[in-house]
Amino acid sequence: MNALDFTHDPAAQSWVTSANADGSDFPLQNLPYARARSAGSHQDWRIVVGIGDQALDLALAAQRGRWSSAIQVLLEPLARGDLNAFMAQPKAARLALRHALFEALRAGSPQQASLEAALRPLRLLEFSLPARIGDYTDFYAGIHHAVTVGKLFRPDNPLLPNYKWVPIGYHGRASSVVVSGTPLRRPWGQRKGPNDEQPQFAPSQRVDHELELGLWVAQGNALGEPIDIHQAEDHLFGVSLFNDWSARDIQPWEYQPLGPFLAKNFGSTVSPWIVTMEALAPFRCPLERSADDPQPLPYLSSAANEVGGGLDVHLEVHLSTAARRAAQLPAERLAHSNAKHMYWTAAQLLTHHASNGCNLQPGDLLGTGTISGPLPEQAGSLLELTQGGRQAIALEGGESRTFLQDGDELQLKAWAERAGARRIGFGPCAGQILPALTRS
Amino acid sequence: MNALDFTHDPAAQSWVTSANADGSDFPLQNLPYARARSAGSHQDWRIVVGIGDQALDLALAAQRGRWSSAIQVLLEPLARGDLNAFMAQPKAARLALRHALFEALRAGSPQQASLEAALRPLRLLEFSLPARIGDYTDFYAGIHHAVTVGKLFRPDNPLLPNYKWVPIGYHGRASSVVVSGTPLRRPWGQRKGPNDEQPQFAPSQRVDHELELGLWVAQGNALGEPIDIHQAEDHLFGVSLFNDWSARDIQPWEYQPLGPFLAKNFGSTVSPWIVTMEALAPFRCPLERSADDPQPLPYLSSAANEVGGGLDVHLEVHLSTAARRAAQLPAERLAHSNAKHMYWTAAQLLTHHASNGCNLQPGDLLGTGTISGPLPEQAGSLLELTQGGRQAIALEGGESRTFLQDGDELQLKAWAERAGARRIGFGPCAGQILPALTRS
Repeated sequence: MNALDFTHDPAAQSWVTSANADGSDFPLQNLPYARARSAGSHQDWRIVVGIGDQALDLALAAQRGRWSSAIQVLLEPLARGDLNAFMAQPKAARLALRHALFEALRAGSPQQASLEAALRPLRLLEFSLPARIGDYTDFYAGIHHAVTVGKLFRPDNPLLPNYKWVPIGYHGRASSVVVSGTPLRRPWGQRKGPNDEQPQFAPSQRVDHELELGLWVAQGNALGEPIDIHQAEDHLFGVSLFNDWSARDIQPWEYQPLGPFLAKNFGSTVSPWIVTMEALAPFRCPLERSADDPQPLPYLSSAANEVGGGLDVHLEVHLSTAARRAAQLPAERLAHSNAKHMYWTAAQLLTHHASNGCNLQPGDLLGTGTISGPLPEQAGSLLELTQGGRQAIALEGGESRTFLQDGDELQLKAWAERAGARRIGFGPCAGQILPALTRS
Repeated sequence: MNALDFTHDPAAQSWVTSANADGSDFPLQNLPYARARSAGSHQDWRIVVGIGDQALDLALAAQRGRWSSAIQVLLEPLARGDLNAFMAQPKAARLALRHALFEALRAGSPQQASLEAALRPLRLLEFSLPARIGDYTDFYAGIHHAVTVGKLFRPDNPLLPNYKWVPIGYHGRASSVVVSGTPLRRPWGQRKGPNDEQPQFAPSQRVDHELELGLWVAQGNALGEPIDIHQAEDHLFGVSLFNDWSARDIQPWEYQPLGPFLAKNFGSTVSPWIVTMEALAPFRCPLERSADDPQPLPYLSSAANEVGGGLDVHLEVHLSTAARRAAQLPAERLAHSNAKHMYWTAAQLLTHHASNGCNLQPGDLLGTGTISGPLPEQAGSLLELTQGGRQAIALEGGESRTFLQDGDELQLKAWAERAGARRIGFGPCAGQILPALTRS
């Protein structure tokens, strides 16, 4: 885990005054990375750091700021718009840049005058994916999700025997991971009900969301070389919100024997901001385990991981329907959860992934799987909230939903807060479902 | 499908005389692409075209040859070593370059004098992956493999009900696809026998090969936009050999409910040469279907696909053990098969993949799945040849195998031949299994 240092001082303030406001997602203690440019422009993408309601453009900051030569070297790939190259740096280097940015943006910094011109208001920016995603893997670490979904199919045996031994995961589609705000078309697909004579190919009627975190890989490993659990945290760059949209009617017909495919790969939405592991240091926690859970096998065990491998991050799902937007009503909260409900830590997911020698690369994205809590209102998908689509949920104002309708916009939110630490937020992760394409 | 043209004339000869030898994999009618450089050097990688026992360096060819301006434009990304950019070109452009290269390498070409200096002997080259693989998907289109493997687990119901409706596929790991000749370490992994109280983490004892073809995507599709079955062939660039190594003891314990993961992603081997769809035009065939097989759903149906969507490509698996190499014995053939035994065509796999709007990109790799034939000796994996490891196969010279041992080298071979056409080959796809890493 990361030790706390001066960048976690809750009293520290920024000369970017909006960062000091209560409830700001991006106080001085956060300093998340994104890739942005002026909205609607064709400018080059810039790596930016979020601070209050502003983004520090690292290309401009590298030019205008006064930095040590070591920091100038670290800024160089970032000034080119290449976050992956920075992700590949050792943890000490990443920490050094955090320290330098914190000092530069801190109230009273002599850099204020030179860096003010490197700030750009967030509201004027558009975002791309923050990094090139070489491979995207989705895990299944939300045990309450696994149990609830398992109950729908196997009431007497909801959790498969491997669940508490193997961090279950599968490869997803990297090309269709999109940044927050990118609308997605309702997918077509094959489905077959139990009483249908043969399958039909039609637009999915059961489009759902999945509330996840996305873990970004920092330094990778060479093919054939595993990552020891004691070093795993050093290979984690940071965390985003992640919505693994799912077509629940395509999945049951296609997924045997090789797992989900077209039910998932029509699109997955990631938030533009990466909250670094360093920013999350004050919000680490033990995982919730019960006394009868097996000890992890030695390759997945470390004392530090067991004590502080978890993430105490609040999670929420909000739905905005077309009718609510027309009536100028805010989105309605569908569920709230917390990342501490994961059965496996981020370090365990990463170590397991590389345990057979599979090579991870900077910018790879690991989805946690749907992070539901133990209570019904903590369910991270409509599949769970509606008991497999059998019971519609009532929305304020008379609408109801089993699955998502055309025009529905889903927004995930996350933040971390704790006594003695400055609250940090993740920024939004939003996506809208467009009508299916018309086909002959 | 592709019409036959002058590049398929079996009588056409090259001024590279080795290309005219009987049994050459790379006659003038083939012209496969690869990415190569002088072995052991740190030179830039060059895109090359195979011709006899030589490689035409397209960077040198672009400089030295005389080409129309349209061809110069097409050669430009290739001269930079970027096959992906060329794969993204429309089919007509790819065909135009084939025509130009064929004419330039044909016996009597006025280009001979200028292009001779652009040839490099194959034996002096090393190869990288031919293209950047954005995403790699593995299908399960070998029906005899699916039936035989299914029988091991479900003797009375070997083929799942979705098999003849849905081209079953799953996402694989792009980062661990390696080029032929790259050795792979025996992976560690969790396994649990039916009588074990708990799983153990240990080197796999059941490393196996899978005989597949790899299909390379040419032009892709935008997210949300499917690829019509009638246009699917235009989106296929070409075909390589592909070995989807599998750890058969890791897979059963990890794969429920989300499919194979660490049992597969420790490495997959692809051959360096891409045989283009244009070169394969004379070797297209109908698929083998029986009268009671269902008609594909309309989105997967086209008359051309049904008549000529198949590939009549001979496939072989050869094993070289350490003992055989010490005794200077050649590799032993384990199996032979043919790509015509696929249940789905390449076009159907591609169209299905994009049918929900999933965006394919130039350089994406689609594995066919293990292509076994109907006879026992046509099995494309040891799992099938040994009936799930229950019956060792005897090798010449007294050795036997259930699964691969350390030092075993597996080589896949493929070629296409037919009366009235010039035989073309794929070059080798080889990989060796190294001992597992020692771990504390």
